[in-house]
Amino acid sequence: MIKTDILIIGAGPTGLFAVFEAGLLQLKCHLIDALPQPGGQLAEIYPKKPIYDIPGFPEVLAGELVDNLMEQIRPFQPGFTLGERAETLEKMDDGTFVVTTSEGTRHQAPIVAIAGGLGSFEPRKPLLDNLEDYEDKGVAYMIRDPESYRGKRVLIAGGGDSALDWSIYLAEIASELILVHRRNEFRGALDSVEKVQDLKDRGKIRLLTPAEVVALEGEGALERVVVRKMTEPAEDIRVELDAFIPLFGLSPKLGPISSWGLEIEKNAIRVDNTLDYQTNIPGIYAIGDVNTYPGKLKLILCGFHEATLMCQSAYQRIHPGKKYVMKYTTVGGIHGFDGSKKEAPKAVVKTIE
Amino acid sequence: MIKTDILIIGAGPTGLFAVFEAGLLQLKCHLIDALPQPGGQLAEIYPKKPIYDIPGFPEVLAGELVDNLMEQIRPFQPGFTLGERAETLEKMDDGTFVVTTSEGTRHQAPIVAIAGGLGSFEPRKPLLDNLEDYEDKGVAYMIRDPESYRGKRVLIAGGGDSALDWSIYLAEIASELILVHRRNEFRGALDSVEKVQDLKDRGKIRLLTPAEVVALEGEGALERVVVRKMTEPAEDIRVELDAFIPLFGLSPKLGPISSWGLEIEKNAIRVDNTLDYQTNIPGIYAIGDVNTYPGKLKLILCGFHEATLMCQSAYQRIHPGKKYVMKYTTVGGIHGFDGSKKEAPKAVVKTIE
Repeated sequence: MIKTDILIIGAGPTGLFAVFEAGLLQLKCHLIDALPQPGGQLAEIYPKKPIYDIPGFPEVLAGELVDNLMEQIRPFQPGFTLGERAETLEKMDDGTFVVTTSEGTRHQAPIVAIAGGLGSFEPRKPLLDNLEDYEDKGVAYMIRDPESYRGKRVLIAGGGDSALDWSIYLAEIASELILVHRRNEFRGALDSVEKVQDLKDRGKIRLLTPAEVVALEGEGALERVVVRKMTEPAEDIRVELDAFIPLFGLSPKLGPISSWGLEIEKNAIRVDNTLDYQTNIPGIYAIGDVNTYPGKLKLILCGFHEATLMCQSAYQRIHPGKKYVMKYTTVGGIHGFDGSKKEAPKAVVKTIE
Repeated sequence: MIKTDILIIGAGPTGLFAVFEAGLLQLKCHLIDALPQPGGQLAEIYPKKPIYDIPGFPEVLAGELVDNLMEQIRPFQPGFTLGERAETLEKMDDGTFVVTTSEGTRHQAPIVAIAGGLGSFEPRKPLLDNLEDYEDKGVAYMIRDPESYRGKRVLIAGGGDSALDWSIYLAEIASELILVHRRNEFRGALDSVEKVQDLKDRGKIRLLTPAEVVALEGEGALERVVVRKMTEPAEDIRVELDAFIPLFGLSPKLGPISSWGLEIEKNAIRVDNTLDYQTNIPGIYAIGDVNTYPGKLKLILCGFHEATLMCQSAYQRIHPGKKYVMKYTTVGGIHGFDGSKKEAPKAVVKTIE
């Protein structure tokens, strides 16, 4: 059982920043996210795209913002359960909550902060009869650990940024990289398309277009797939491989959270914006894009504010009656749980002679 | 008469960021500030101090944050009335507001957003009988235009950062720079104290300590001051000069705003935090440190959020009934009023052969 002060569901920008504000209050955080890395959409969907409306950044790449937030919260040593989806919530007799993930990992905390964005990202799956039989046995919809593909024969299906970028990345790691797409045209950053063209020209990527995977074969685990080339007449090719990775995009789903007894409105969690972004269940908060209230804007900067006010309220729940005197970071500095210390240079008092 | 869509009172970080959010909605802003430069406290009080709790910045100097915000809002061409304090507010028959400054500059807008921080910064003045007779006639409490001291004989009084830093700066500009302080010890950044020591050693700064200015003299304008050296016995020195600048610190005062009919609570303006941070006077908003509501935190990041929601509400007031569809900046880009355009690189659709 993982125990913490604030259990944060969702490691996007709002969830990450909550760790910082909690840290200032000496509260520890642990984050759960269905994606294999922190950053939410920013890291998974558009890491190389610029954002223009983060205050103080005339322009920042989404991936950079995540890196900055990770650096900012480092002193407060958050724990992470990544690549697992929060499934069930139980309320214990002592008032704490236990959240169990899709992989059975259990987490206990007096406070749960749902920072789930638009929901957990679920892959769009190809329509193949026996697809589920091979899940985690050769079929994967997300790349959790690129190194696990070293020396393997990998087939990626898809025609967007994800398929392009992972093909480029894995072409250097896999023993064989096949890219299958239903069309000849790919849609992505010019740079990525050109890189794939170059890798294909150099024989590092085998390209099958227009084509699609139509069948999966193998005993117990995936051994080969049938790729149908959409020529006239169509031609079926059997490809021996270790991994089939269809990258057809992710779509967010509120998912299991929607059955936790929270008040749901327009696919979002209703919160009390007059005070602390608490849900209808005391001790459970919802912050960032996952919540709704009158005038709600789904903006990262709003999530930062909501996370901050949520932490103050969480502090009061954890330490009832204890008076917290806020100190500006410029004055009080940052005292990391790792013993690190950041503070403004002190003024000196010195005679000039 | 200066006309704009949103008249922002206070050019601190919250006021500045409001310009950006208004710009996304194609609304123009004009800012009034009593200080001679934008940035509020960050620029005037602690430009060289680090802030640790701006989301996405593990550490940022206050002055840098202001520079970044100025760069971020540049495409939206805000107007500035600086070095003037907003004094009076009138409601016109057409529902707009007219705000007049201490210097008589008039501004008209349908929306007023008060982002006044802790209030307008008023200098702490020395206790000298005829001080006010010489204000703007040789006595100044803030340096609006350093160049106006070129070739002049300047006496600065004070022992803190401001006195040190301006002495260093003006020593290169003024024909003569005298620094007077009641004590031998100065309090400030080590670097600043050392620089003043060096300038004194090189004869660029004349230091009179422990001493204080005890009288002002001159016909119509300041011509000389009497400096009392606190020796035993005390010794009075007459110093001929053009400018006497006492830098004894600034203290914020809500000031004239407090008589505008707004609901004031604990020296702050009460706003409706359930929706849009509007005050009790429709069309007038208060954002950032100047406002109060249940759970209010006086943090810059909260001001950013408040500014953003305020702009949405202002848009509805200015364009009643018009539906605004929010576009993420990553998707929609930034279209400056100056014709500038920033946008994410577009995806290409390209055949790989």
